[in-house]
Amino acid sequence: MPSKAPIGFCGLGAMGMGMATHLVKTGHQVKGFDLYRPSLQRFEAAGGTPSPSLLNSAVDMPFYIVMVATAVQAQSALFGTAEGGDEGIVHKLPQNAVLLLCSTVPASYAVSVERELKEIGRGDIFFIDSPVSGGAFRAADGTLSIMAGGATAALEKGMWLLEAMSAPKKLFVVEGGIGAGSNMKMAHQVLAAIQILVTGEAYGFAARLGLDAESVRKEIVEGEAWSWMVEDRGRRVIAGLDAWRPGVSALTIILKDTSIITSSARLCNFPVPMASAAEQVYFSGLSQGFGSEDDAGMVRLYYPGPVADVKCTVDKEAKAAKLKLVVNMLIGIYVCATAESIAFAQRVNLPLDQLHELAVDAAGGSHVFREVGAQMIKGLKGDASAWSGLGKRLEDVTQGLSEAASEAQNLKCPAFLTNTALSMLMLAKRTADKDASAATAVKVWKS
Amino acid sequence: MPSKAPIGFCGLGAMGMGMATHLVKTGHQVKGFDLYRPSLQRFEAAGGTPSPSLLNSAVDMPFYIVMVATAVQAQSALFGTAEGGDEGIVHKLPQNAVLLLCSTVPASYAVSVERELKEIGRGDIFFIDSPVSGGAFRAADGTLSIMAGGATAALEKGMWLLEAMSAPKKLFVVEGGIGAGSNMKMAHQVLAAIQILVTGEAYGFAARLGLDAESVRKEIVEGEAWSWMVEDRGRRVIAGLDAWRPGVSALTIILKDTSIITSSARLCNFPVPMASAAEQVYFSGLSQGFGSEDDAGMVRLYYPGPVADVKCTVDKEAKAAKLKLVVNMLIGIYVCATAESIAFAQRVNLPLDQLHELAVDAAGGSHVFREVGAQMIKGLKGDASAWSGLGKRLEDVTQGLSEAASEAQNLKCPAFLTNTALSMLMLAKRTADKDASAATAVKVWKS
Repeated sequence: MPSKAPIGFCGLGAMGMGMATHLVKTGHQVKGFDLYRPSLQRFEAAGGTPSPSLLNSAVDMPFYIVMVATAVQAQSALFGTAEGGDEGIVHKLPQNAVLLLCSTVPASYAVSVERELKEIGRGDIFFIDSPVSGGAFRAADGTLSIMAGGATAALEKGMWLLEAMSAPKKLFVVEGGIGAGSNMKMAHQVLAAIQILVTGEAYGFAARLGLDAESVRKEIVEGEAWSWMVEDRGRRVIAGLDAWRPGVSALTIILKDTSIITSSARLCNFPVPMASAAEQVYFSGLSQGFGSEDDAGMVRLYYPGPVADVKCTVDKEAKAAKLKLVVNMLIGIYVCATAESIAFAQRVNLPLDQLHELAVDAAGGSHVFREVGAQMIKGLKGDASAWSGLGKRLEDVTQGLSEAASEAQNLKCPAFLTNTALSMLMLAKRTADKDASAATAVKVWKS
Repeated sequence: MPSKAPIGFCGLGAMGMGMATHLVKTGHQVKGFDLYRPSLQRFEAAGGTPSPSLLNSAVDMPFYIVMVATAVQAQSALFGTAEGGDEGIVHKLPQNAVLLLCSTVPASYAVSVERELKEIGRGDIFFIDSPVSGGAFRAADGTLSIMAGGATAALEKGMWLLEAMSAPKKLFVVEGGIGAGSNMKMAHQVLAAIQILVTGEAYGFAARLGLDAESVRKEIVEGEAWSWMVEDRGRRVIAGLDAWRPGVSALTIILKDTSIITSSARLCNFPVPMASAAEQVYFSGLSQGFGSEDDAGMVRLYYPGPVADVKCTVDKEAKAAKLKLVVNMLIGIYVCATAESIAFAQRVNLPLDQLHELAVDAAGGSHVFREVGAQMIKGLKGDASAWSGLGKRLEDVTQGLSEAASEAQNLKCPAFLTNTALSMLMLAKRTADKDASAATAVKVWKS
């Protein structure tokens, strides 16, 4: 392992800065570049070597990490913008360099990078498709989740670097070569995209029900409706405006990932009604000027005032019934998010057990994903016992969601995800037995 | 025919005022009541007899018309609010009176009125469930569409009055007794609810594409993407703010009808993803304070500025391609609206040919409903030739809609109905042949 080999790096945003400075802290020489000057200065202050230009950051670097925000930016950084020009990193990297693309991009884009490298005679570069997950704190800690795909030789040469940035059990080498890592990230983001928005939908609904936000939070965090996202975003939903400007994760970030899901799904004629509904609501938030603010601020599309100001005035029994409606809303949506993620993963030939192992302890995790998701995977693998008997019943989940939808309607509360999920569960019930498990919902998505 | 028999009337809103004054103009003695004083004065000025109270308007009236806004208002007017009291119209109506409930209400509510009349010993009243459609102008003209259900004897006694308010070929007696008229109205409103919102979605998308609104309008009105709603609402979308305050048809009106659709659908476990998506967007409009304004103002949720201000700057060919995207968006959504309306009508046992005859020339009409709708009905009746060969192909409609969805995404334009429809068409393709007709889409909804 060339443990202290110099590393080139471009894209010193919230995630990239954490990753690059972590590598510096662990003794690596990292030359970083970003178009935004203040980021370069911060990087220098943290012990990094600021690069005077994008191209310079690649010269003589046996290892290089791209962590820009989008595929468009990656294309420009890698290959340059001018037609047939040589203004990209790949034109400067030394022979047999290892190149990690850590941005979240469509798998089809990662594949196109591999092809273009060959076309321009840089097939010598060891290219790895390795998107990351975990947020800025874990980036700076070197404990990210990483989903890596690529040729065996490339993965071998880059392994020490992938390990340096990820937590011990959070580095997932995904079989399938270039594109597999990006597809795995995408399947995970199906959960993230839906469960970020459901936080707003659930807390907004709860506020209209007259529930105080702290009781809602307790009910969710301690009960069956727990998910990583709703716990995480729930804090900032309650904290309100001050926590959203600038916030921790901008709406535009999850919107970008959501658009990767829906555009990739369109290309393979795969329906993703849940992620698609979420995307349209995110676009609405963007239209209202919330793009640069924290995605927790999406709660404003469901409830206008601060949810923290709501005081619960009903008795214990009535309150428990209202909390149950919120829990049922969440459970129904989680079941559909889980089904959409797993069925889409199967469609793009991902190893489902690996997706489950990865997501269950990551930002997409939920109790429902753990249990119902495992059951769906069992069923998709041919074990018919998954479609009945065990665990939650489709009938009960649908009924609970239907009651939540009905009450949201009474309160004139928009409930995009709730109603999309309800339509899908009703379709699932069409072909399901009376005692069908909630896992059977995945059959509606499955091609 | 008791042609000049006196008529009691309650609910002098936009529709009710037109209906009541039309009856006055044609020589009937009409005693009308409304809680809103200025309406009573306007009614008197138009030659009507204002009633000093709700109950007084029913005394000695052999015919009575209820045209209040909601089922809740109807219940209060008919039976009074106090438990076991006698503060409702039905307690004052003379023996064997004919009672027309013309409000748009859930069929289940109309059925409950029939039951309650019997329970309180007023089974002598000839009750007719007869919602209307056509707008305030046609109400004042006596040329409404009316969907009437009830016992044969009641329909016979009330026929002259139904005829007095409707156009010659627009009075539809729906088989199935009380509730059938309301169900027919509901099935029609599935088209209306979706096609009012699609006007905003299409014009908003077109504006983001850089198309001038007049070209869009011409393309829609003269081409295959025509629908009554998009033509009608399109005018007011283009006219802008001045046409929305107060406007012709308030957002709250179509929202009320949409909620009847989705709540009735929930009760019979029938998925209505299109109407449901529309309802959530309407709730968003309501949250933004647009409830009392014209529903054409929903375009603001898709494009912030006045669409009439957009100037098209691209060449003829590029413009034609952009217009085609808008047309494809509309066609795809019409196909799904048509499928949802017809499949739901079948679910509640409505005569499908009658729905087609009624809606094709009413506010729910579109070229797609005329052609693809007729084909769906043929197929549902067992003629398998409807599922292939003829007319539009499922593959083409899906492809066109997918391209529109892709471009809307590029433009960051919310496209709720587009994406809901796309998911449904993708599900339809799962079980369809390569050359399947667009009509096969109905199979996804069909239970």
